[in-house]
Amino acid sequence: MRNVVALVYKCSVFSKHLPVVCNPIRLSHNQQWGSNKLHRKIKIPNPQREIIMADPKVEEILAPLRALVKEQGDLVRKLKQEKAPEIDVKKAVAELKARKKVLEDKELSLAPAEELFDRAKMEDLIKRRFFYDQSFAIYGGITGQFDFGPMGCALKSNMIQLWRKYFILQEQMLEVDCSILTPEPVLKASGHVERFADLMTKDVKSGECFRLDHLIKAHLEKIKSEKNTAAELKAEIEDILVKLDGMTAAEMEALMKRFQMKSPISGNELTPPIEFNLMFNTQIGPSGLVKGFLRPETAQGIFVNFKRLLEFNQGRLPFAAAQIGNSFRNEISPRSGLLRVREFTMCEIEHFCDTKDHPKFESVKDTQMLLYSADSQEQGRPAEIMTIGDAVSKGIVNNETLGYFMARIHLYMLAVGIDPKKLRFRQHMGNEMAHYACDCWDAECLSSYGWIECVGCADRSAYDLTQHSKATGIRLAAEKKLPAPKQIEVVEAVANKAAIGKEFKKDAKVINDALAALDSAGLEQLQAKLDAEGEYALSTPNGDLKLTPNLVSVKKTQKTVHVEEIIPSVIEPSFGVGRILYCILEHNFKMREGDEQRTYFSLPAAVSPMKCAVLPLSGNAEFQPFVRELSSQLTDVDVSHKVDDSSGSIGRRYARTDELGVPYAITVDFDTIKEPHSVTLRERDSMGQVRLPLTDVPAVVRDLSNSKISWANVEQKYPKFEQQENVKGAAA
Amino acid sequence: MRNVVALVYKCSVFSKHLPVVCNPIRLSHNQQWGSNKLHRKIKIPNPQREIIMADPKVEEILAPLRALVKEQGDLVRKLKQEKAPEIDVKKAVAELKARKKVLEDKELSLAPAEELFDRAKMEDLIKRRFFYDQSFAIYGGITGQFDFGPMGCALKSNMIQLWRKYFILQEQMLEVDCSILTPEPVLKASGHVERFADLMTKDVKSGECFRLDHLIKAHLEKIKSEKNTAAELKAEIEDILVKLDGMTAAEMEALMKRFQMKSPISGNELTPPIEFNLMFNTQIGPSGLVKGFLRPETAQGIFVNFKRLLEFNQGRLPFAAAQIGNSFRNEISPRSGLLRVREFTMCEIEHFCDTKDHPKFESVKDTQMLLYSADSQEQGRPAEIMTIGDAVSKGIVNNETLGYFMARIHLYMLAVGIDPKKLRFRQHMGNEMAHYACDCWDAECLSSYGWIECVGCADRSAYDLTQHSKATGIRLAAEKKLPAPKQIEVVEAVANKAAIGKEFKKDAKVINDALAALDSAGLEQLQAKLDAEGEYALSTPNGDLKLTPNLVSVKKTQKTVHVEEIIPSVIEPSFGVGRILYCILEHNFKMREGDEQRTYFSLPAAVSPMKCAVLPLSGNAEFQPFVRELSSQLTDVDVSHKVDDSSGSIGRRYARTDELGVPYAITVDFDTIKEPHSVTLRERDSMGQVRLPLTDVPAVVRDLSNSKISWANVEQKYPKFEQQENVKGAAA
Repeated sequence: MRNVVALVYKCSVFSKHLPVVCNPIRLSHNQQWGSNKLHRKIKIPNPQREIIMADPKVEEILAPLRALVKEQGDLVRKLKQEKAPEIDVKKAVAELKARKKVLEDKELSLAPAEELFDRAKMEDLIKRRFFYDQSFAIYGGITGQFDFGPMGCALKSNMIQLWRKYFILQEQMLEVDCSILTPEPVLKASGHVERFADLMTKDVKSGECFRLDHLIKAHLEKIKSEKNTAAELKAEIEDILVKLDGMTAAEMEALMKRFQMKSPISGNELTPPIEFNLMFNTQIGPSGLVKGFLRPETAQGIFVNFKRLLEFNQGRLPFAAAQIGNSFRNEISPRSGLLRVREFTMCEIEHFCDTKDHPKFESVKDTQMLLYSADSQEQGRPAEIMTIGDAVSKGIVNNETLGYFMARIHLYMLAVGIDPKKLRFRQHMGNEMAHYACDCWDAECLSSYGWIECVGCADRSAYDLTQHSKATGIRLAAEKKLPAPKQIEVVEAVANKAAIGKEFKKDAKVINDALAALDSAGLEQLQAKLDAEGEYALSTPNGDLKLTPNLVSVKKTQKTVHVEEIIPSVIEPSFGVGRILYCILEHNFKMREGDEQRTYFSLPAAVSPMKCAVLPLSGNAEFQPFVRELSSQLTDVDVSHKVDDSSGSIGRRYARTDELGVPYAITVDFDTIKEPHSVTLRERDSMGQVRLPLTDVPAVVRDLSNSKISWANVEQKYPKFEQQENVKGAAA
Repeated sequence: MRNVVALVYKCSVFSKHLPVVCNPIRLSHNQQWGSNKLHRKIKIPNPQREIIMADPKVEEILAPLRALVKEQGDLVRKLKQEKAPEIDVKKAVAELKARKKVLEDKELSLAPAEELFDRAKMEDLIKRRFFYDQSFAIYGGITGQFDFGPMGCALKSNMIQLWRKYFILQEQMLEVDCSILTPEPVLKASGHVERFADLMTKDVKSGECFRLDHLIKAHLEKIKSEKNTAAELKAEIEDILVKLDGMTAAEMEALMKRFQMKSPISGNELTPPIEFNLMFNTQIGPSGLVKGFLRPETAQGIFVNFKRLLEFNQGRLPFAAAQIGNSFRNEISPRSGLLRVREFTMCEIEHFCDTKDHPKFESVKDTQMLLYSADSQEQGRPAEIMTIGDAVSKGIVNNETLGYFMARIHLYMLAVGIDPKKLRFRQHMGNEMAHYACDCWDAECLSSYGWIECVGCADRSAYDLTQHSKATGIRLAAEKKLPAPKQIEVVEAVANKAAIGKEFKKDAKVINDALAALDSAGLEQLQAKLDAEGEYALSTPNGDLKLTPNLVSVKKTQKTVHVEEIIPSVIEPSFGVGRILYCILEHNFKMREGDEQRTYFSLPAAVSPMKCAVLPLSGNAEFQPFVRELSSQLTDVDVSHKVDDSSGSIGRRYARTDELGVPYAITVDFDTIKEPHSVTLRERDSMGQVRLPLTDVPAVVRDLSNSKISWANVEQKYPKFEQQENVKGAAA
């Protein structure tokens, strides 16, 4: 729910259309790091569509809703074709979105619940084991800011490390690390100073602020829930609520008046809607005169370095630059935990290109994905599973570059633990695009908050480079070699510098500069005036100055050019790390069968905060040398681990490592002391255990963690350890 | 040069005294990742002391300067012993520092120049190959802010990754990732709001700001350099310049008046000294009422999470938390490239402990380090090479924990490429300690800017936790099990609740609360009053209320306690990543013998931006499949690399990879096409080349990059490739 002012920016963390890679290396499919090692074999077992379509009764309920969407979608198209007034199109789109939302809510409500998800229980675990928690809590806390504890921080850092391998290493991108503090002119050029705003209203007495759409929503929902509200008004309110997202400031103000809205806290009057810029401002340097902002996205740092990066790439296109770093948005009312915060980590790629075919597309073309095209949305059809190859060849996805990046994003999301059933790519409809974007696909994850935009993939076209060129006068463009040399006509003003110098003295320089700056229209006019009137009044910073044919002429020459100058298109995949992290936690939150108190995170080893736990069966001193030795050997092979030698039964300690999402646990017991030394190794999800020689352990755990071997391999090779774990009541 | 206001904070990025590790795992020396694999065999070939002491003539020149330092050092000690007035001690210390600086400058000027270092040439390379450069340059640039390009960013990220392995993985620290935006009360408690300031002066007309010490220095140096300045005044100015660092605002103001200082730019009058707080401020949330700052250090995020971290560590001490992230300081006049900037990355460790012995000290005790103790500094003696074991046993380094961390810092610095001859640990003298610190050792690197503080290691004692406890009323302490249970006397007020309830009705609760809150002095007074006067006026939020012996009595009981509450000491190693990075670049900047134009960075593979380059000899299409295959295989084994298939001779392209600090280059040539396929592999520093089978390459380069094998091993195993590289004139 964000008002129309900010809507154009809504997708700027998370946007759409997809980049090509920068280097002309073609990896064959099975040589790719991500696709073959981690997830090549993953199938999408129970995709969204099957869930929804499984029951014909469900489709029966949905059919009329789909028809309503289609009807409105058709109307929108018709209006656009007929070039109807913008206001009519806008109203029709708002209605379309409203109908789409009703359909989508119904679809979700009818989808069979695979498992019960208990958000409060998960949040309790997240706090209790300090994955993350509110910042500065001992000072009362600040909303919209979170501190990541050891487990959350390790999870986040593993996600980022994997991202670096998937994108920067494999695609040989140019990683940069740019300043967070950004001077005002940069963000003026990018459009953020003017347009990066939300609507709010203030309590006229206390000054307390409310995000306007939230306030209206809460107020109307209250009226709707009241007993004596007429059914007619209830229906109208329902209609308003679904359209709220697309409303203008004036429309919202009208609602405030009509329903006599006051501050929900003090009951005081409220101000009319105020546009509130979401950037944090400060002053750079001691004078207080240089205004700066904390960057609202990392992208601008890449754009302002375009020339240096192009040069680093030896002047060649395409190439991609990437940045991992924090961005800041001064949300009016942060909410939904990590989903809407004031400070967040992004991984952004800016892929600069001139053509949109992709040398590595072949390697991903069979990737199956759930796609929700703008067309499907407008026609009330559900999202569809298809290969990215088909999607591109059918024109659903615009081009190979876009398709390649969408597939790579998809594979990355699976590698970090996103449930493939709860991942879709949704194309933006025409009217929800950011002001700079010309196409946009969002990777959305289904969570208990609904479908959450986690990765945006926007085609920003040449918007940003053009804006920064205009603002600085520095040409941000690449030269492209032409297939064949080309003859072009060059028109230029030829000044008789000696004569000009003699006649104009100190004005000579401004005249020469002004002549050099004339564009083709200016030159034509100069020629015409000289021909017709024998003189031309040249506009200069020192006023209009008269030139005559003895001082200047216009010359046309033929020139052979080998290159053309182009401002590249930019395709931007933009990852919101905190949002993905939250969805990973939701998708991997599990309860042991038969014991709802025993919860755990079934995180993939690649991102789990630690790869294994080392547990001595008891405090017996004889175990200690083995524990120390194991720990040191695990360190040697770079396996992150935790020694848990606290008191508590082994079952309790297993439960604790399960809660932390640690995939493997090694137990040192009395048999370990005997020759040949051996230990048990336990896998978290199946709770299966094997007995293996002590000396094998470090390599086995390392290979399991890197997905070089599977748990099934281990169970085949080593004898099962039969002692059954007592699940019930073992939680710490 | 920082004035006295800020001096107390000077070392807070980079401080002193050293932490123990958090987990009771003892690694033997040769099992440690860093020490055995990368640098166990590194000897300190030509330490600082030997350089200086080599020439008896040099010592002869230095001897009188040393004597002057010693004389003053003795005076300072005497004054302190005699408890002389603070102002006298301060003056004597300023004089001591001045004499020390003269000695140190002389020492550096007499040290034999090992090689010529050309800073301009290095900076040109850094810019040209975009290691880093000024931020927002197309908008005119902002001083004190830098963007890291692909090579600088990769170098930085490798340094951080190595840091994570050295400290977080090996020492099993708790890594956290806390908010940058910090509300005011937190930084009030930490002392930053009041004391984190520099002195500046403003042009009264234009408002232009100058850092006061810089302005005075420039002004006096100009006078000193003028021909007609009297020799006496020159000598006096020299004296003032060395004492400037320790001057108060009043002393500086007196200098401004005496020398009639004006704005060096406009000639306008200047304001008296102004304290300028170096934190960037902003407002959190839309109301404009919640004042916040960008954190000036990452440490506070750890302190405010102390309770959660202690709990995560199951209530046990010691443990260490670590954080990697950006901090911000609004420098009045940033300078010296990466050394004084407004935005910078820190790696900070807060080690919470109750005792200062260290279980792993044994593993590092033979590490040889260059130590410059406070005593040596005060006595005019040079820094000394010694083992950390000796330094601790002699009491030069206060304790094992400190010594352990100093040794680990030392090993890390060598692993990332710091020249051991240009690394020393300098102890802060009594009067330069930050307000929170009780001991401090800085790891300093020698650069063309002099000795630069790169890592601080401060004993912050219980300062921060105590401050935050006071500010929030939340007790930040740990419980420590006593060696044996202890009997203590507990005094408490016993209320007759029924009677109080009956008599005081709704005031009963405040009475019970007030009684429970009485401290021992209050309880004593209660007892005394009840005994002597038969009543006691209890102060409560509802006013004084009279209690009589039938309502309350004071009871003394014996209680057995098993734990005591302690506020742990904090030892803080704090790494300035940008400063270390700059010193690494300086220490590894080399020129080829006989060709000053051909410069390169001899970076260790562990941190070099890429591990190897893949170079096809020419644009011949037959090379392409081999280049692609190699690149894909290198990706498979996680070896970062760059394919350089641009035109230009192979010599030019070697020169380019050398400039980027890439240690290995693989060349695909006509022999590669023939069976058995082979390539040449070249090592950057020696420019030695071998010929090896294509299939061996990925593993060999991976093992070289991980320091599992050495270049000598490779040269032993494979035939030398004899074709000599033409060095002269090959630079791109």
